[in-house]
This record gives sequence, C-alpha cells and structure tokens, in this order.
Amino acid sequence: MKISIVMFDEFTDMDVFLMWDLLHRVDHPGWKIRLLGDAARHTSRTGIGIDAHGAVEEANTSDVVLFASGPGARKKIREPSYLARFKLNPDAQRIGSICSGALILAALGLLNGKRATTHPNVRHLLAEFPVEIVDEPFVLDGNVATAGGCLAAQELAGWIVEDALGKPVRDKMLAEIQPVRARATR
Amino acid sequence: MKISIVMFDEFTDMDVFLMWDLLHRVDHPGWKIRLLGDAARHTSRTGIGIDAHGAVEEANTSDVVLFASGPGARKKIREPSYLARFKLNPDAQRIGSICSGALILAALGLLNGKRATTHPNVRHLLAEFPVEIVDEPFVLDGNVATAGGCLAAQELAGWIVEDALGKPVRDKMLAEIQPVRARATR
Repeated sequence: MKISIVMFDEFTDMDVFLMWDLLHRVDHPGWKIRLLGDAARHTSRTGIGIDAHGAVEEANTSDVVLFASGPGARKKIREPSYLARFKLNPDAQRIGSICSGALILAALGLLNGKRATTHPNVRHLLAEFPVEIVDEPFVLDGNVATAGGCLAAQELAGWIVEDALGKPVRDKMLAEIQPVRARATR
Repeated sequence: MKISIVMFDEFTDMDVFLMWDLLHRVDHPGWKIRLLGDAARHTSRTGIGIDAHGAVEEANTSDVVLFASGPGARKKIREPSYLARFKLNPDAQRIGSICSGALILAALGLLNGKRATTHPNVRHLLAEFPVEIVDEPFVLDGNVATAGGCLAAQELAGWIVEDALGKPVRDKMLAEIQPVRARATR
C-alpha cells in the first residue's frame, strides 16, 4: 500500500509530523509512506526545511493521499497549474486532509456536495465551495475524509490504519502517544 | 528568551515537532527557539533529516532547554563525551524532557532525588537512576520538568508559555490545536 502525504511551502509542522509519525508506528512491511511536494524541498511555516521523497504526481498512483495544512494551502488553491497536477479518483483511492488541507480537496472538486470539516480559522474559506461543513473532528464521506484541529490527525491516521489493519492495530497505535495518565485510566 | 530543543539521531518526530510548533504559535518577538544537535543534521527514527540550528553547547547558555526523545536517547546516555558537553544549571535555567528524553536528564544527574515521569516503554530504564518515578503526564520538580507520552508535549510547552507569558496565552496556544469538537464543547 502506498500512502502519500502532500506538503508544500508554509506547511504546518505538527500536522505533517503527527500523521507521518503515527503511520510509521504501525511498521507494516508492505507500506510505503511518502512525503510529496512540488519542489525538492519545502519549508514549513516555522522555517523547518524538509526534503520531499517525490513529486505530487505520485499522489495520482497512491492508494491513500493525505493533504497537509498551513498558510501554504491557502495559496495553493489559487494556483491552477498546481491543482492540474492532481488526477485523483475517490472511487479507487482513499483521500484525506487535515485542517486547511480541506481547501485543496475542495479546490480539486473532491468535496462537491460532500460533508467535510476543517480548522475553524479557515472555515469561512471552505464555505466558499459547495461543501456541507460539519463541525466535527473527523468527517468521512465516501472515500474522502477531512479532519479539523491539528490533534485530529490522530483520527485521520486512525482511519487509514483501521481500514487496512483493523481496530486493535489502530487503538494500539493511538494509545502509544497518549499522555501517561490518560492511558493508565483507559 | 532563548529556548533550545536538543535533538539527536533517531529522535521521535512528533515529540520534537509538537514542542517546536506549539512554541512558535505564541509568536513572541523576543523568543529565539533553536534546534540543537551534536551534528549539523540529524535523522529521525522514521528517516526525516532535519538541519540543526546550532551545537548542543548552546543549551548551556539558554534560558530553557528541552530534550527530545526517541531510540537515540537510549544511546546518548551511554556516551560520556556527549554528556560532558552539557553544563546545565537548574537554578538558573528551566530544563525539561519529553518521554525518553528523561533518560538524558537522569544521566546528567539533573533528576537525582527528584520526581519525574517518562514514557512507559522506557520506565524501567529510568528506574536505574536515583529518581522517584511518578506516572503522570507532566511532573515539575523545582525548575526541572518531565513529560510522559508524546501528546504530553502540550504540557511541557504549556509550562514554558504560562511561566513566561501567563495562563491565558498558554490556554489559547493549546486550544488552537485541539480537535474541532473538543474545542467547541469546552
């Protein structure tokens, strides 16, 4: 299974690395997890430079495509040449976003007539698209999932893992990162 | 105020980036936040390469020093030449760790006779030091704080922010990253 996380300049650091780190905790030998970009290296909103593993076109042949968030997402939706590089198929692929990554899904037409969530800071921007906005941490409509609020990246990664490997594997993955007391009292 | 986050090879991605990202959300003009290492570039446990902003010796002149975690921490505590580079002073500095970063604090003698927490996976290793282990997400003893479980990085960053800028600023910083519903029902 090929899982691609799409990043861009001015991405939100924790949104990328929560998904990335969580998905690696499953340590499934058949999984190939890639950070894709439209440049060889992207710089986060805080100035961290990250090398891309490949170009965004790889998303078109991935089983799972997850879009990062950040100020850069607001810019990308106004770049037709960027959006044209994606040929995603929600009938054959699982597609998701965290926070403002939903804006890119919407700009690609993937949320048309669908229910979706995003970060409250960009809710007004998502409302410009024909999307039914739902104020939930995680919204799944068909094969398209949106998560709102950085820590909801747990739900996004959890969706992929549960779908592929079952709920016990998902639960174990998420339990591992909880604060000590929270886990003890579960 | 200079805040240093100490990383090393095989660091846990989300532990570094939760602290790093959260502290940047405060956007305080007087804050200088640095990623320190014992090499120009470090590779995380999942293979992400991150450039260091400076050498670990900078920690010795920082107001706040936060140690990252990961398999690398277990190796660093067996490197006397690495440990010797730190001259930290808990009377003058705020010093903290996430998860297995507590092992480095312990190896530096900073947890001697103190209460501390860590990730359950390395609790047995921390128990080899003269430390009173407390199974809490966040333990503050004097100016030395330890956090256990990746998401407890919120408590660690929250401690620094509340101490410097007050509880309302801390609360706003943490609210911003909560899943959508969790925030709405607060």
